Amino acid sequence: MRGFSGCFQWILLAVLTSSAWGSENPPVAKYVFLFIGDGMSVPQRMMAEEFQQEVHKKGLVMNSFPYQVLTKTPSANSFITDSAASGTAIACGEKTNNGRIGTDPTGKRLESIARTAHKSGRRVGILTSVTLNHATPASFYGYNDSRGNYYSLGLDLIHSGFEFFAGGAIDRYNDEKDGKFQGNIYELAQKEGYQVFHEKSDLSKIEPGMGKVILCRKDGALPYAIDAEEGDLELVELTRKGIEMLDNPQGFFMMVEGGKIDWMCHANDAGTVLRETIHLDEAIQVAYEFAQKHPDETLIVVTGDHETGGLTLGFAGTGYQSYIHRLQFQKCSQDVFRSRLQKELEKLPKDAKWEAIQPLLTESFGLAFTEDRENPMRVRSAERKMLEEAFQNSFQEKKISASPLTTTTVRLFNNKAGLAWTTNAHTALPVNTTAYGVGAEVFSGMIDNTDIAKKLRPILQQPAVSSK
Amino acid sequence: MRGFSGCFQWILLAVLTSSAWGSENPPVAKYVFLFIGDGMSVPQRMMAEEFQQEVHKKGLVMNSFPYQVLTKTPSANSFITDSAASGTAIACGEKTNNGRIGTDPTGKRLESIARTAHKSGRRVGILTSVTLNHATPASFYGYNDSRGNYYSLGLDLIHSGFEFFAGGAIDRYNDEKDGKFQGNIYELAQKEGYQVFHEKSDLSKIEPGMGKVILCRKDGALPYAIDAEEGDLELVELTRKGIEMLDNPQGFFMMVEGGKIDWMCHANDAGTVLRETIHLDEAIQVAYEFAQKHPDETLIVVTGDHETGGLTLGFAGTGYQSYIHRLQFQKCSQDVFRSRLQKELEKLPKDAKWEAIQPLLTESFGLAFTEDRENPMRVRSAERKMLEEAFQNSFQEKKISASPLTTTTVRLFNNKAGLAWTTNAHTALPVNTTAYGVGAEVFSGMIDNTDIAKKLRPILQQPAVSSK
Repeated sequence: MRGFSGCFQWILLAVLTSSAWGSENPPVAKYVFLFIGDGMSVPQRMMAEEFQQEVHKKGLVMNSFPYQVLTKTPSANSFITDSAASGTAIACGEKTNNGRIGTDPTGKRLESIARTAHKSGRRVGILTSVTLNHATPASFYGYNDSRGNYYSLGLDLIHSGFEFFAGGAIDRYNDEKDGKFQGNIYELAQKEGYQVFHEKSDLSKIEPGMGKVILCRKDGALPYAIDAEEGDLELVELTRKGIEMLDNPQGFFMMVEGGKIDWMCHANDAGTVLRETIHLDEAIQVAYEFAQKHPDETLIVVTGDHETGGLTLGFAGTGYQSYIHRLQFQKCSQDVFRSRLQKELEKLPKDAKWEAIQPLLTESFGLAFTEDRENPMRVRSAERKMLEEAFQNSFQEKKISASPLTTTTVRLFNNKAGLAWTTNAHTALPVNTTAYGVGAEVFSGMIDNTDIAKKLRPILQQPAVSSK
Repeated sequence: MRGFSGCFQWILLAVLTSSAWGSENPPVAKYVFLFIGDGMSVPQRMMAEEFQQEVHKKGLVMNSFPYQVLTKTPSANSFITDSAASGTAIACGEKTNNGRIGTDPTGKRLESIARTAHKSGRRVGILTSVTLNHATPASFYGYNDSRGNYYSLGLDLIHSGFEFFAGGAIDRYNDEKDGKFQGNIYELAQKEGYQVFHEKSDLSKIEPGMGKVILCRKDGALPYAIDAEEGDLELVELTRKGIEMLDNPQGFFMMVEGGKIDWMCHANDAGTVLRETIHLDEAIQVAYEFAQKHPDETLIVVTGDHETGGLTLGFAGTGYQSYIHRLQFQKCSQDVFRSRLQKELEKLPKDAKWEAIQPLLTESFGLAFTEDRENPMRVRSAERKMLEEAFQNSFQEKKISASPLTTTTVRLFNNKAGLAWTTNAHTALPVNTTAYGVGAEVFSGMIDNTDIAKKLRPILQQPAVSSK
C-alpha cells in the first residue's frame, strides 16, 4: 500500500536530515508537550472550533497545527476502548485490555514515554484536571492490572521520581483498607523527596530549584472550567507553572490531560464539554507561546483517548440548521445545576407548580418561557410538556430527586443548539491527533493510538543535549 | 501557526522536486481518480473498516492510503452543507450556498477541476451510483442556481464534451415542462456526438476508440449493492469500463461517486450503508490495481462530501460493547424490505397477529424470536413490544403502511449492532480525505473541502505529456 508515496516521504526525510540542517546538528525536540483531551474526538473539537469561530471569530490553537492524523482507538479486547487501555496505548505504545494500566494483557510491565524521557535526562511533568492517579495520567507512571487500584497507583506516582505533578487530588491517598497500605500517600510523598502543596495560594511559593513538587487539591478533581471560582486551581495556570518548574538545559516532557471533557460527555452536557475543551486549548496556547520562544526545539502533540457520548453535530429536530453559539447561554455545569435545582425543589411547598423553577432554567440555560415566537430560546409547548413531566417525576414517593429534570433540561438545551448524543458510554470513533514543531512531521497517514508513543519514543530517547 | 513546520514541508518539497527526480522529469499525475462517498464521513468509513476486519480480516483500501486529512465541510451559508454546495466546493474549490451547482453565491460560474483536466488534454469520466445529473456529479460539469433544475443540468452534461458518463439515469431527461425544453436529452446527446447505452449487456459493445459514451440506466439510480441482481449495472464494473475507455497517452481524470451511501444514511439504515461503502471500496480497488501498473503517474484521492445521519459507533443500550459484524445478517435494503413487508401486510387477514410477519424479520435481518437467551439476535420482550406496537400502527384507518414497522425494525437492528443515529439530515462532522500516488503528499494538515480542488488543480493544469 505504502509503496511509492511512502518512499516519497522517507526520501524527503532523508534528504532533509542530511542536508537542510546538516548532519552535525539535526533539530532536537528538547521540550515535548503531549496534551490529551479525555473523550475528545473530532465532534468535540469541531464543536468548540465552530463555537469559537461564531462567537469569538477565532478557532482553536489545537486545530491549527500543520500535522493532523486520524487515530484509531480500539483496545486489545474491545472495539470501544476505556481510558486505561487507551492511556496505556498512548503512553506506552502497546495495546492492552480495557482496565489495565501500564501493563500488557499478560501483566507484563510496559515502559511509558514519560519514563523514556526521564531516562534521556529530561524532566517530566504530569498534569490533569481530574485526580492524579486516574487512568490517563496513571498510564504514564503506573503499572496495575486494574485502574481501580488507586492507592497502589498513588504509590507508583510517588516512586516515579518525576519532577512535577499537578491537578486534582491523589485519590484514596489514605485508603487504609488497601492490602498494600503503607500510610498516607501525601506524607509518603515527602519521604520520597516531594514537596506537597494543595492551595492556589501555594503557587507563588513554588519555584524552580526547590526539587520535586506535587501541587494538587487535597480531594477530588479540579472544578469544571464553567464553574471555576477565584481560588480554584486551574489547568492553564498549572501548565504555566509546570513549564517554569521543568525548564532546564536537559529539556522536559510534559503530559497535560483535560480529563473532565470525558465526564460531561458521559453526562451528555455539551455546554460544559465546550468550556472544558476551550480551557484545554488555553493551556495549549501557553505551550504554543513557549514554542514561539524555542522554535527549533519544541514539539507539541494534541490528541484524545477516545470519543465519549456519541456526540453528533446535527440533530433530527433542527435538520440542516446549527445553533452551536447558543451554548453560550449555559452558565454552569449539569452537576452544579442539579444541586441548585435539588435545593429549590426541596424548598417548594407541596402544591407548587412547575412554573416555580422556570427562573432557574432561564438563569442557567437561557431557556425563555415566553409567547414571543421570534425568541430563539423560546420553550415550545411540546418542550414545556416534557419539562413539566420531568418536574413531576422529581417527586417519587417521599424522595425528591433533581435528576429527571436535570437530564431533560440539558438534553433539550443541547437539541436547541442543534446537537445530539447517542450514549452515556464511549464510542469507537477515531480521534484526531495534531502536531506542531520539531519532528511533528512524523504524524502522517492514519495512525493507531499506539503509534503516538512509537513516534515519540525515538524523539524522547535522544538526549536534548549532546553528551559530546 | 504554520511557521516552522510549514516551512519544513515546503523545504522538503523544494529539495525533492529539484533533486530526487531531477528538475527535467518531475513525476506527473497523468491519471487522476477522485472518489466521493456521498454522506461518507469518519463513522461510515470506520464502521466498514471494522466490519471488514471482523468478518473478512482485511480493511478497506481507501483507509490504507498513506496521506490522510480531516476535511471541513461548511458551505458559504451553513455550518451543515448540502451536496450541491459541497460538490461545488470539491469540484471547483470555492464555497457557495446550499443548493447551488458550479456557481458562487452571486451566480458567477466556477471552473471545475474536471474542466481544468479537460483543457490540459486529459479525457474526463463522471461516474455515479445515483442519477448522472444529481448534485455531486453535476458539480463537475454543471452551472445552476438550483440543484433541482435537473433538465438544465442534463443539458450541461451533454454540452460538457466529457468523454465518458456512467451510472444512474439522466433524471427528467424528457421534462417537457422545463422552460428551456429542447427535446429528449438522450436524443440530444446523440446530436452532441455521444453514443448512449442503457443496459448491462451493452458493456461488451462499448470499446475504446468509439468516441464519447453515456452508459446509464434509462430511469433512476443504480440499485443498492445489497439488492443488486444479475443484469444490474454496478459501480465496480463501470469503473473498470471507464478506465478502459479513458486510458490514452494524454491521461485522464475520473470522478466516481458512491452516491447512495447518503440515501441510506438519511434513512438510518447502517447495513445498506455498509454494503454501499464496501462496494465503493471495490471500485477504489480497481483504481488501485491500475495504479500498480502505472505507479509513477497515478493519483487516487478518496473523500466524502459531508456526514449524514449522525451515525455513532456506539449506542446507549450496548454501552462499551460493539457488534458491527451483526450487520452481515441484513439481507436487503430498507427500501426492499419495506416493499416486501407492504405486500405481506396487505395479504394478511383482518384478525392476523403480528407473529405472522416475524419470519420476514428473521429472513431480512436475522432477528431471532426465540426463548434461547444465548442467541445474540434474540428479540427481547421490550423489543417485541416495540415491534408489535409498530405492527399495530401499520393499520391506520383504511390505509396499510409498512413504514412504522420498517423504521422500528431497522432501528432495533442497528442498535443490536451497537450503532445509533441522531438525525435524518446531514451533520457538520468533518470527513476524511485519503490519497495515494503521485502528488498525494499535498494532502496534509486539516483542510477545507475547497482545498481538494485547490490542491488538484495545479496537478491537472499540467499536461500529462510534455508539449516539448
